[in-house]
Amino acid sequence: MRKAFVTGAAGFIGSKLVDRLLSRKVEVVGLDNMSTGQDEFLRSARNETLFQFVRGDTLDSDALCGAMQGADIVFHFAANADVRFGLEHPGKDLEQNTTATFKVLEAMRATGVRRIVFPSTGSVYGEAEEIPTPEDAAFPTQTSLYAASKLAAEALIQAYCEGFEFEAYIFRFVSILGERYTHGHVIDFYKQLIEHPDYLTVLGDGTQRKSYLYVQDCLDAMLHVIDQRTAHSAPHRVQIYNLGTDEYCQVTDSIRCICQYLGLSPHLKFTGGNKGWIGDNPFIFLDTRKIRATGWEPKLTIEQAIVKTLRWLEQNRWVLKRR
Amino acid sequence: MRKAFVTGAAGFIGSKLVDRLLSRKVEVVGLDNMSTGQDEFLRSARNETLFQFVRGDTLDSDALCGAMQGADIVFHFAANADVRFGLEHPGKDLEQNTTATFKVLEAMRATGVRRIVFPSTGSVYGEAEEIPTPEDAAFPTQTSLYAASKLAAEALIQAYCEGFEFEAYIFRFVSILGERYTHGHVIDFYKQLIEHPDYLTVLGDGTQRKSYLYVQDCLDAMLHVIDQRTAHSAPHRVQIYNLGTDEYCQVTDSIRCICQYLGLSPHLKFTGGNKGWIGDNPFIFLDTRKIRATGWEPKLTIEQAIVKTLRWLEQNRWVLKRR
Repeated sequence: MRKAFVTGAAGFIGSKLVDRLLSRKVEVVGLDNMSTGQDEFLRSARNETLFQFVRGDTLDSDALCGAMQGADIVFHFAANADVRFGLEHPGKDLEQNTTATFKVLEAMRATGVRRIVFPSTGSVYGEAEEIPTPEDAAFPTQTSLYAASKLAAEALIQAYCEGFEFEAYIFRFVSILGERYTHGHVIDFYKQLIEHPDYLTVLGDGTQRKSYLYVQDCLDAMLHVIDQRTAHSAPHRVQIYNLGTDEYCQVTDSIRCICQYLGLSPHLKFTGGNKGWIGDNPFIFLDTRKIRATGWEPKLTIEQAIVKTLRWLEQNRWVLKRR
Repeated sequence: MRKAFVTGAAGFIGSKLVDRLLSRKVEVVGLDNMSTGQDEFLRSARNETLFQFVRGDTLDSDALCGAMQGADIVFHFAANADVRFGLEHPGKDLEQNTTATFKVLEAMRATGVRRIVFPSTGSVYGEAEEIPTPEDAAFPTQTSLYAASKLAAEALIQAYCEGFEFEAYIFRFVSILGERYTHGHVIDFYKQLIEHPDYLTVLGDGTQRKSYLYVQDCLDAMLHVIDQRTAHSAPHRVQIYNLGTDEYCQVTDSIRCICQYLGLSPHLKFTGGNKGWIGDNPFIFLDTRKIRATGWEPKLTIEQAIVKTLRWLEQNRWVLKRR
């Protein structure tokens, strides 16, 4: 890897990736439309001569082609990551996740870049019957527009690998935690408890079980696989890996951990039902034997990742005012 | 079913569906942009007072909403069905199959129609390891832009069922044959043999194995499932069925059948390789136990369907000049 092009470069995972690539002396061009990206997250990157930032949108083919020129790998991390609010604007996931991925693929074809790394989601397994869910689980039924749009993007990438000899690394993430984390249940709970330490409103009945992974472990895993560079020999030139820890936690466990860290004992108000929202998957736990077989393993437990996240939120309260 | 809205109403399967619905005294509004649809295919429908035709595009939300008003079911049969040429115009499948499906779903939401019937394809299983391939086969890798776009449309429909309480009937077809068939290997071979009866150019090495289904059997199957009206109680309000016969045939078998019908013995020129084109799936054979368990079974064998197709092509040579 000599020169990388990163979309969503000012986002949570994207900006962490940029920093990591720069520390490896990889030249990086980062693109972000700053709709949810944070200038603050690019502060250290901007000090590096190997880094160049382009403000632009992934739906803008000209911006993509210009910024991508000369890269040997694309990390397409820009996305609408609001899983919960898909139904409020049904076209957003399709446009920002599926159509944008198509634009990125077309820009790659135009500029001759052939390798793509794509963060997908464990939500594409829908309400999987097989848990922990392996990469080759039964053909799923989608329950959210977010997952549908990520599945569609995966499918496009796969078709480009077959049709245009691209190489792809697709990673299906559990929820990612850590420094620069800006949306999800930890920040929602933290925000609430800052405002009213005596009670906490919890979507669903608190029994939802989810998996989490620390952002640096997530980056380690992806770079580990890419360094082995086996996609060109993989079936259909596509490598697909689940990313997660080998544990999951119930929402109430997570609440206990957060409250313990903050020294609070709020009254819990559950909104009820086994789902947090329509289309929520009440149990997400991925089988990660495939990625573990490559030699990678996570360094942090879910609880440690939650604590890291809380510590960062405490030191960066400005982020609570965003959105 | 009282009033149906059919997109792709002037196409092969769409127009056959329109005729069938009219014969059941269902009111039908048919939409087609006539890009590949045929006026001729609507000739009998146009004599029926229960039929109304709207020339319009599935990407045009206003046209969709206007035409769909008052329907209680949508048959979304408009599609780019050119599986082979996806790589020549990579945006076409995404736009005409995925984005168009989104527009149809949004028009349904706007007009309060909640039931959708969607023809998908056995190609979504990619190069399945499990053959015959059941509906819950292992999570596939896509090999063509066509299949990727149909999978994406399936996923969108599923998310609308979960999020907006739609009911969906998704049918994954093998190749369909019969009267009004206008593209695929039978017409390609027939056309060639009319032009030069002494030789036939065959894509691939002739060993590709595919399944076929007669168009009236296909319509029988879909209407049979819809008449049982169980989608509202199905998991996620989505019913998914493979449609096909319980046999498959090799390209060379199909050639034998066509040549026998025409009384020809052409020299066969194979272009080589186990695929007809990039992204082609060399073996498509679907497990149809699920649809058979509902009581449906096909009336025609693949060979009988090929003969029906040839007979129709002979009587409708004008169709060879199309495209």
